[in-house]
Amino acid sequence: MRSIVILALLNCGLCWAEQAGDCVPSALNVSAAKYPCIYPDNRAMFRVIAPNATKVRVRIGSGFDMTKGPDGIWTVTTTPLVVGFHYYGLEVDGATVADPSTMAFFGSGWLNSGIEIPEPDTDADYYHAKDVPHGRVSEQSYYSKVTGRWRQAFVYTPPDYGSNPKAHYPVLYLLHGWGEDETGWTRQGHVDFIMDNLIAAGKAKPMIVVMDNLNAVKPGEDGSIFAGRGLVPAPRSAPPTAGPGRAPVSSGGGLASFTGATFTEMMLTDLVPTVERTYRVLPGRENRAMAGLSMGGMQTFLTTLSNLDKFTYVGGFSGSCGGRGGSFDPKTSCNGAFADPAAFNRKVKVLFLGIGSAEGPGTKNFSDQLTQAGIHNVYFESPGTAHEWLTWRRCLKDFAPRLFR
Amino acid sequence: MRSIVILALLNCGLCWAEQAGDCVPSALNVSAAKYPCIYPDNRAMFRVIAPNATKVRVRIGSGFDMTKGPDGIWTVTTTPLVVGFHYYGLEVDGATVADPSTMAFFGSGWLNSGIEIPEPDTDADYYHAKDVPHGRVSEQSYYSKVTGRWRQAFVYTPPDYGSNPKAHYPVLYLLHGWGEDETGWTRQGHVDFIMDNLIAAGKAKPMIVVMDNLNAVKPGEDGSIFAGRGLVPAPRSAPPTAGPGRAPVSSGGGLASFTGATFTEMMLTDLVPTVERTYRVLPGRENRAMAGLSMGGMQTFLTTLSNLDKFTYVGGFSGSCGGRGGSFDPKTSCNGAFADPAAFNRKVKVLFLGIGSAEGPGTKNFSDQLTQAGIHNVYFESPGTAHEWLTWRRCLKDFAPRLFR
Repeated sequence: MRSIVILALLNCGLCWAEQAGDCVPSALNVSAAKYPCIYPDNRAMFRVIAPNATKVRVRIGSGFDMTKGPDGIWTVTTTPLVVGFHYYGLEVDGATVADPSTMAFFGSGWLNSGIEIPEPDTDADYYHAKDVPHGRVSEQSYYSKVTGRWRQAFVYTPPDYGSNPKAHYPVLYLLHGWGEDETGWTRQGHVDFIMDNLIAAGKAKPMIVVMDNLNAVKPGEDGSIFAGRGLVPAPRSAPPTAGPGRAPVSSGGGLASFTGATFTEMMLTDLVPTVERTYRVLPGRENRAMAGLSMGGMQTFLTTLSNLDKFTYVGGFSGSCGGRGGSFDPKTSCNGAFADPAAFNRKVKVLFLGIGSAEGPGTKNFSDQLTQAGIHNVYFESPGTAHEWLTWRRCLKDFAPRLFR
Repeated sequence: MRSIVILALLNCGLCWAEQAGDCVPSALNVSAAKYPCIYPDNRAMFRVIAPNATKVRVRIGSGFDMTKGPDGIWTVTTTPLVVGFHYYGLEVDGATVADPSTMAFFGSGWLNSGIEIPEPDTDADYYHAKDVPHGRVSEQSYYSKVTGRWRQAFVYTPPDYGSNPKAHYPVLYLLHGWGEDETGWTRQGHVDFIMDNLIAAGKAKPMIVVMDNLNAVKPGEDGSIFAGRGLVPAPRSAPPTAGPGRAPVSSGGGLASFTGATFTEMMLTDLVPTVERTYRVLPGRENRAMAGLSMGGMQTFLTTLSNLDKFTYVGGFSGSCGGRGGSFDPKTSCNGAFADPAAFNRKVKVLFLGIGSAEGPGTKNFSDQLTQAGIHNVYFESPGTAHEWLTWRRCLKDFAPRLFR
């Protein structure tokens, strides 16, 4: 009897050792947190201490119920997950909360936990820190006359910006998606490493990248479509992974009320002048590009297509003025921006439409419709990815080298 | 009957309106989250959606049990809280988690929620964004030969750094506390606004402030004392507010094994050369200051007192090489750094010891012991604050103007 017990303990110890060895902590865990961890086949193991809880779920993908151990610790191992960055949350007896063992990422209007399912280094190389000259991401505070508030933009300056004090640079204005904020492109997107690596390889021109927050409301204006799930109880029941992009659709058609007019006014009145006053910027429309993901892509099209005297390069990553079904009329769609293809093609050097292959055919159809209407455009499809940050990292990697040529 | 119902609804509506009006959402809430909110008398109301939970607590101060409403929403109003920044967490049926309705702040080795109990504007003015020239906080990636890893430091450059390309600046190296990281001084401390305001008022010299992470271990070295509660289940049961500072004491005497030698080696081998190669820095010991809070203050004393050929200004905010009881012998305490008071006073222009009045007499006693031993030092006490960030903001406000004179 006793020998059996010992044998059981030995076995358990062995299994555990093997398991722990195979399961590598997510790169996004805080300090030395061991969970969540990821197996070589992309299954993830989550672990939550909730001794008195009756039901604990991990809100990732379709969600996974966790199992309680005798020590009050809940665990679950998921099915294999898609590579790249995923938002997730925990549901503890009906409370949707962040897992304090990972860094927090702002999406869907509140703080989610995050897990990164690693790609092979050969694929991930372009967004990893490498031993190349590094640019810097700075926080730029500025006062907006249009909104009557202090705002904060994140500004990437290229590696030689400091050592080359006479040089001036073109500017890419780059927006996040619904329910996210100005931290997204750095924290979830690794914009700094992507640009550092592209510039070091001579693939992209040195440029300044300005990442602002697309939330812009005037005093008294309704900002609810921006506020996201942090605002009200109900939407909390939707999984964070439904977050940016799909969220507007699920947020009571709030998007219908999205005009983006205030952001455009704020950007042209407050942001662009602040950037051009504060940084060494090349002047003129040919040195100005704008892109965004999801709702930020919609905002980009709204802002640029009505101000083509100020922008030459336009990028929509999983978001634009089209691609969501419905008929396309070159004369009237997108506020008639494409009514004169020849004039449009003269003004816009790059019209970029990016999408994840798992996001459906809408964007491809829109690109085809534009092409049939005689509008030059670039269609980029990220293989095997959905409405998530790996799609948008890949979009930026393909888009940035096309700028300012 | 019907009129009674209507009356009841009206009453409820009125009460709620009054309550909501009095309770102002915390400035640290995400997007437009309405809770937690703060009443004029500094009581805070917390709100958690946990329909199936049997017990929910807010881990702030001594902790507060929440009450479940018929809608499955738990609420509690605390007793009046001390002004300033507090970490907090939620306990949902035994799970200690972050509240996704606030921004997350890294302390005690995992992500806490945060609430800021506002001071009167007259007191808080110095750490608020004001319409003065703004410096910038940049993320500086660099490779450490000592640890064999990429590291990230946050670097504040003063407002005129960009517009004054010939100017060179002195450097303050500023460390966070136990279980925190290089984001703490910007996110919890508002170092950028404090420096902007001091510089604009002519109270502090324009300087560069470098905020690195005091976690530094060589391959194979034990980093557990840095890892904090994210590492193991057990300490999760301690409230986050016990976090930085007190935590080393409560973490099984881990601090006894804290030598800080690897950080000192990393700082002098990797960080300082990176900073002096990358930024326009004034050379020499008279242009180099170092300070830190709690464990970062201990690290500061360990690093500077054994390298007085490299540092002229030393600050310990709620942490130094003394002040934790025990006897003080000027010849041997702090590795004998004070054995020759005259020599010490010639080298160190400012030896600063700051503390919150609620933290006990240890630091005051240490300051008196140093004074009795003939060591010039500055003692600063923050009235009414504990081992928290408001103490350390006030320390910086008092310390920075003394530098580089």
